[in-house]
Amino acid sequence: MIDHRRLRVALLGAGSVGSQVAHLLLTQAEELAERAGADLELAGIAVRDVDAPRDADLPRELLTTDAETLILGSDIVIELMGGIEPARTHILAALSSGADVVTGNKALLATHGAEIFDTADQVGASVSYEAAVAGAIPIIRPLKDSLAGDRIKRIFGIVNGSTNFILDKMDREGLSAAEAQRIATELGYLEADPTLDLEGYDAAQKAAILASLAFHTRVSLEDVHREGIESVTADMIEGARRAGFVIKLLAVCERLDADGADDGTVGGAEDGTEHGTAGGEAISVRVYPALIGRDHPLATVHGGNNAVFVEAAAAGDLMFYGAGAGGLQTASAVLGDVVSAARRHIAGGVGVGESPRQSLPIAPIGRIVTRYQITLEVADEPGVLARIAGILSEAGVSVATVEQTPSQDATGRAHIVIGTHRAREQALGDTVARLGASDVVERVVSVLRVEGE
Amino acid sequence: MIDHRRLRVALLGAGSVGSQVAHLLLTQAEELAERAGADLELAGIAVRDVDAPRDADLPRELLTTDAETLILGSDIVIELMGGIEPARTHILAALSSGADVVTGNKALLATHGAEIFDTADQVGASVSYEAAVAGAIPIIRPLKDSLAGDRIKRIFGIVNGSTNFILDKMDREGLSAAEAQRIATELGYLEADPTLDLEGYDAAQKAAILASLAFHTRVSLEDVHREGIESVTADMIEGARRAGFVIKLLAVCERLDADGADDGTVGGAEDGTEHGTAGGEAISVRVYPALIGRDHPLATVHGGNNAVFVEAAAAGDLMFYGAGAGGLQTASAVLGDVVSAARRHIAGGVGVGESPRQSLPIAPIGRIVTRYQITLEVADEPGVLARIAGILSEAGVSVATVEQTPSQDATGRAHIVIGTHRAREQALGDTVARLGASDVVERVVSVLRVEGE
Repeated sequence: MIDHRRLRVALLGAGSVGSQVAHLLLTQAEELAERAGADLELAGIAVRDVDAPRDADLPRELLTTDAETLILGSDIVIELMGGIEPARTHILAALSSGADVVTGNKALLATHGAEIFDTADQVGASVSYEAAVAGAIPIIRPLKDSLAGDRIKRIFGIVNGSTNFILDKMDREGLSAAEAQRIATELGYLEADPTLDLEGYDAAQKAAILASLAFHTRVSLEDVHREGIESVTADMIEGARRAGFVIKLLAVCERLDADGADDGTVGGAEDGTEHGTAGGEAISVRVYPALIGRDHPLATVHGGNNAVFVEAAAAGDLMFYGAGAGGLQTASAVLGDVVSAARRHIAGGVGVGESPRQSLPIAPIGRIVTRYQITLEVADEPGVLARIAGILSEAGVSVATVEQTPSQDATGRAHIVIGTHRAREQALGDTVARLGASDVVERVVSVLRVEGE
Repeated sequence: MIDHRRLRVALLGAGSVGSQVAHLLLTQAEELAERAGADLELAGIAVRDVDAPRDADLPRELLTTDAETLILGSDIVIELMGGIEPARTHILAALSSGADVVTGNKALLATHGAEIFDTADQVGASVSYEAAVAGAIPIIRPLKDSLAGDRIKRIFGIVNGSTNFILDKMDREGLSAAEAQRIATELGYLEADPTLDLEGYDAAQKAAILASLAFHTRVSLEDVHREGIESVTADMIEGARRAGFVIKLLAVCERLDADGADDGTVGGAEDGTEHGTAGGEAISVRVYPALIGRDHPLATVHGGNNAVFVEAAAAGDLMFYGAGAGGLQTASAVLGDVVSAARRHIAGGVGVGESPRQSLPIAPIGRIVTRYQITLEVADEPGVLARIAGILSEAGVSVATVEQTPSQDATGRAHIVIGTHRAREQALGDTVARLGASDVVERVVSVLRVEGE
């Protein structure tokens, strides 16, 4: 049944992933041809500089700086350049010429996804991007196809390996943030400019892509509430440990029911209405460092690994786990998409586009409901706890646990750690502001959300 | 872009999964139509007895006993009857009429897969079967598509929820096998005839399907080495616990390198040659109760849940986890396949068949290499351990750990637990036979393989 067709494959970019993709296309050509039902001919590799050093030894005659010419006449275009331009222009050109596109470009999809998917739909070509989220872990295809008949309620997980490596080092070896970052940089987990990872942009791009798929709604990077790990200190991690938690940078994509539905909130629920955060069915997409119970499977995701939980109405809880990055690992995801695109070429028919859009509104962060852990530095004197409890009570935030650590030194300052019941973020934010303004509170040390329970 | 096409969907079978599929098709018609790009009209539900009680309230006018007529003129046929006939005949009829088929019938695919996939290829229709393995967990599509460009080395996991429930009950509550089985039956984890689960047939069917996909080779039920959990006693589970293990019924699909390749064997490696178990590249597919370290993620898979590990050359280690059974959960997998099949109908083109076959030979069980734990009942007298160590040494099986528990009672019998280094199954089997024949050994209590390390 093997059709001895030959498909021309153009590769744009030969960085750590691109080099491995080229290497595998060249060295495993026979196996890939058998799987795809056609020879996958690597027609060329577009690079900025043909003389730059590469991770893999690539035939020099395949390298070119002329991406435009390479793209024309290709059946499948693999874009692994990263960044917005010229990647966007090349992908649109490829689609317009009828080629299927495989990309791992999360930044592009999270900002220009609508334009790219619309173009693909118009010409009947396909855009595949398994490599854009969670490296080698198959998560895009399960969401797009396997769960297409289900109703996804929530996705949450660890989708940035660099920050997980850092937080894991801090947690397991008691390192400071600076020390952990230095090691991450040395081992290649962090780029020269680490802000994309540390400030949560990379995770937010992935969250936007996952939420778009899960909720059939176009979610862009700017729709994602984003907090990075810059503010996470060794003290916070130690405090989390004492309370039975670990701090992980989480991406959370959540479907919020229309107001009035029972969301399990205790206290402060109606507060949302006052602040304009009430509303109908909506989605929340957010990235922040959060507390996870040490007995939760996500707590055991170490180093640069990724794991994604999916809660679906019918399927229940699913987990996907594996390597979140790495040139070779991510190349596996790229080649899976390439073989699938080749099969579609052989089978004929138009590409199956992104599913039609429900366009659920994005909820403001104030509308989300979680448990919180608030750490305060207070004067170590009688009556302080009563004052703080009073402020929380007035705000309708219900306290689950309080732990006071007496002053350890001559400062006369104690720490109070308050665990709340489930509350609206808006109510919580107001409360934290009032606590901060109170004369008995020296400093709000940290406010962390608790996820995964 | 919504095409207001209407696709006729025929459902065969209205058991626990079928009822839920029908219910979701009827109650979430609008959402499914949006996802699929076409209305999915449930044209009818073929059942044996229209008056039988159902899990869900289904419109009586949709029920029919005439499956043949229902199939004709349908675009998508969902087969959830189970069993070989008449399911096989109906699926072949559906494919021949050009319909796409969605099935959860592992028994049929594991025995008549070749006939069904060949028929689908000939007519250009598709057969989808995500529901056949690991319930709601997306594992078929990731193997077929996402990992299509990778080289899978090994799959192992817990794919039978009923036996996992029983073993987990025994492990966590110290119950006997009979007690745990009684509870499993009461809670609906075991059928009236539990042999399919207990003797490992169900897991073996799933292993055959996974191995077929992973190794691009047709693997049938009879190719699978199968041992059930009938012989697992509370004593064995307690012994495993003391040694830091848990006993799980595992399905293992493994690619074996050609002989001469370094397989990490210590001792007994060349023994295989003598026994005709040597050879070229081959695959091993097997189901048996095995020891898993308590710190391995599979050890934490409780109750009726399933988890599948995949080791791929490029992607590294991946894990998929979720509900292994349940009518509603499995219905999610069925509907994902239905929506995907509908999209293909809209897109046009022929179905993408099973990928071409490599036809790797099936290795005899004697060729596999693992660690073993052998428990012997011996006379509690001097020199016994030396005699046993001698027998192992002669056979070339290298001992890693030995633990002797002195006689606890008047029988004068002690237990010796031997942990071996990695050895060939063939060498091990010979050794166990020699141990059993030795006059110092009263009884071979158990021989268990150690997996996941």
